[in-house]
Order: sequence, then C-alpha cells, then structure tokens
Amino acid sequence: MSDPIELPTTPAFVLVRPQMGENIGAAARAMWNFGLDRMRIVAPRDGWPNQNAVAMASGAGRLLDEARLTDDLAGAINDCTFVYATTARSRDLTKPVVSPEEAMRQAAAKIADGQRVAVLFGPERAGLENEDIARANAIISVPVNPTFPSLNLAQCVLLVAYEWMRATAEITHETVEMAGTVWADAVEIEHLANHYQDRMEEAGFFFPDHKAQSMRTNLRNMWSRMPLTRADVQMLHGMLRQLMRWKTRDDETR
Amino acid sequence: MSDPIELPTTPAFVLVRPQMGENIGAAARAMWNFGLDRMRIVAPRDGWPNQNAVAMASGAGRLLDEARLTDDLAGAINDCTFVYATTARSRDLTKPVVSPEEAMRQAAAKIADGQRVAVLFGPERAGLENEDIARANAIISVPVNPTFPSLNLAQCVLLVAYEWMRATAEITHETVEMAGTVWADAVEIEHLANHYQDRMEEAGFFFPDHKAQSMRTNLRNMWSRMPLTRADVQMLHGMLRQLMRWKTRDDETR
Repeated sequence: MSDPIELPTTPAFVLVRPQMGENIGAAARAMWNFGLDRMRIVAPRDGWPNQNAVAMASGAGRLLDEARLTDDLAGAINDCTFVYATTARSRDLTKPVVSPEEAMRQAAAKIADGQRVAVLFGPERAGLENEDIARANAIISVPVNPTFPSLNLAQCVLLVAYEWMRATAEITHETVEMAGTVWADAVEIEHLANHYQDRMEEAGFFFPDHKAQSMRTNLRNMWSRMPLTRADVQMLHGMLRQLMRWKTRDDETR
Repeated sequence: MSDPIELPTTPAFVLVRPQMGENIGAAARAMWNFGLDRMRIVAPRDGWPNQNAVAMASGAGRLLDEARLTDDLAGAINDCTFVYATTARSRDLTKPVVSPEEAMRQAAAKIADGQRVAVLFGPERAGLENEDIARANAIISVPVNPTFPSLNLAQCVLLVAYEWMRATAEITHETVEMAGTVWADAVEIEHLANHYQDRMEEAGFFFPDHKAQSMRTNLRNMWSRMPLTRADVQMLHGMLRQLMRWKTRDDETR
C-alpha cells in the first residue's frame, strides 16, 4: 500500500508481459529522457532480471533496478486510482479514448489532486488484451497514420513520456542563443547603414538616377529587417573596411 | 528546382551523414507513422542503397526509394526557404532555438504561406557540426532530461514528426468508444435505481433507521455519478434479477 503522505509526483509506466529485454531497456531509456522513473513490469516473457534489458538501458539502468515486478496486471496497479491503457482503440469495449496529450494533461491534474496514475503498455507483438484494457479507466490512442501504425514499445513509451513532459515542464518554446553577443540597437544599425550607403554611393551603386532613392531606401530597409547582433554589425563594418583596404592596395599598385 | 505550382505540403526531413542503415530505416518508419514521406539523405556512411535500411524500413520502404541523395548538405536544402537543425543548443553560434512544438507550429504556418521547409538530423554519434548548423535558420532543441539526454536518431525524428502531426492534424483528444451501445438516459437510470432500491429495501439493507434515508440517497447518487450505458443498465438489471432467481431456487429447496 502506498504511504498516503508521500504521493508519487509522476505516473507509473507498466510494461505488461513485455517480450524482449532490449525493448524493456529501451523503454527505460525512453522514460528517463523525460524524467520518468517509476517502472513496473508484469510477467516479462524472459524472466527477471534480464541482461539484455540492462545492457540496453545503460545509463537508465536504475529504472530497471527499482522496477516493481509482478505476476499479473492486477498486482501492478493495485495502488493506483486511475489507469490508462495505451492501445489501438478497441471496438469491443465501451471506454473513454484520449490522445496522449489529453491523457497526460489529465494525469498531471489528477496527480496534483492526489491521485495515483499508471499507464499500461502491452506486449510488442499483440498489444494489450481486452482483459487488460478492462482494468483500465481509459484508453490512450496515439494518432498515427492509419495506413502505417507501426510504433514499437519504446516509441510508445517515448511519446507518452514526452507528453508528460509537455504537460508539466516549463518549456522554453522560443529563445535565441546569443553566443556571447547582444542585439544591435538602432543607433548601431543606423551607423552600419550609413557606412554602407557612403561606400556604395562612392562606388556608383545607386544608379540610374530615377532609381537611386528607392535603391537607397530598399537597402536601408534590408538592414532593419535583419536580426543583427552587435557582433554581426562589427563583422559587416570590418568586411567593408577590408574591401576598402584591398582596393587601396590595388589602387596603389596601378 | 521545385515547381512553383506544386509546393510541398509537408517538411522534408534531412538525415545528415547518417551512419547505420538500420537507423535510416527506423527513421523512415518514424516519419511515415505520422504521414511524413519526404526524406533526404546526405552522404550516408555506408553508401546507398542500403539493405539494412530497406530491411528495417519494411512497410515504409517507399520513403527510401523516393529519398533524395546528395553528397553535401547544401545540395540537400538548395530548394528550401527555411531550415531547422535538430541539435543540442550550441553556445558557439548565435541562433534562434525553438522547441519541437514551436518549430512545427511555425513550419505549418510557413508551409501554408508557400515556404519550403526542411528539418536536419545529424549523425548518430556526434550530431550536427557547426558548419551544418550555420546553414540552418533555427535550431530545434528537444527538452530532454539534462542528466540523461539520450534520444537516438529515429526517436528524434519520431518526436518532430509527432509534433508535425499535432500541429496539422485534426486530433480527437477525447471521445468514448461506445462499442455498439448508447448512453442510458435519466429515465433508464431512475428505473435501475428503483429496481435496486426495491430489492435492497426488501433485503433490509437500509438499516439502522436513522441512517436509512442517507443510505438511499447515497445509493441514488452513486447511480447518477456513474457513466452508465444502456448495456450497463441492462446488465445491472439482469444481475439483480438472476440473484433473485437464485435466491428463489434456494428458498424453494429449504
């Protein structure tokens, strides 16, 4: 029985009658990539412990060491208050069916509310039986290509674990790696634009006359459209100056 | 050059210098699970075609048959207008960094807007080089456990493909498989509740007197909390009737 004071903060993932040790190890890696480490294993075909699982799990081996092993599904979920079964939708049994995203959204809410949640994954070849699904509260169905539904066990585990992460982690959706520089401000852009305009003017670029002003404006517009950093601006100044030095050297040799 | 009239409706996935054929095949399967089939391969270590890739791809073999093969990255993305590089964040290069979710949300918008989008995935062991990343517009960084970032090539491909599906498909997030029945309406629930109350009354269940009414109400409340289908109601009626028949048979033998 679980200690009511120490509620789990993550769902348990239950591998039901898994067949190959490599797949169990791969499932452990998939879980731990997204911070999940509560694994339960029901009647593994090749017994336990399983050296193939250990070898494949590698750095996620702790999950195997700590996994709860049971002979049957009922034992694996006896302390749970809400169980999801990951399977293709079954037309035989009346059951709520949710997407992985919705399941993990719900799971996060239930866990925050003190529930104890588990997710079942079936044997590689046949998947969960109706007798397994009957013991779940709801089905998770991954929205795969109906003409090619071919996720393996570790991939199923990965996707549900990923959705748990999405439902609970503070994800930075968009940022910029500044690599030690900062954004150029408008003054720096203006200075860069003037440097280029002056040289291009001297070079006779804004030609013919009736197009000159629109060309100047288009160029000025381009600088402001570009997400330039101070480092970019310095490099662009330097490039133009070097071209001028090169020109001067060649002018001197003529 | 791409035909401007027939714009692609999905992103191209580019495997840059992939090492093992099995991983290329697994990547094809991962893509096709989520309806993506535009694969490009840059300088595969073991040449092309690759029988290990074919064997692993199995039902997704068409992606390999149709994959564009190039010697270098530039050739693989020459028709693209926006390129994402899937990699751990690089501290050396200034670059926008987005989550897989944000990347595919953006990609869907860009593709709808006529852009041609590609996503790069690096070699299994080392990942993409800075020289590869420099040719991308932005980085996709998968928010994995910082103490155990161990996604393999096919898993990376799977997650980005999954996010493409999430960004573009009409997903049913929540439904109920009715398995041929319908929800019981309030009349049917009332009838069921009355059947059970009548029998429990006869059985002397609502006892002692001072608790009887709250017990009746709790039972009536339970029926309405349960998501009962017509089939459930019929089964519950049938169970109670069968118990009565059994009781009657035993009464008759006494």
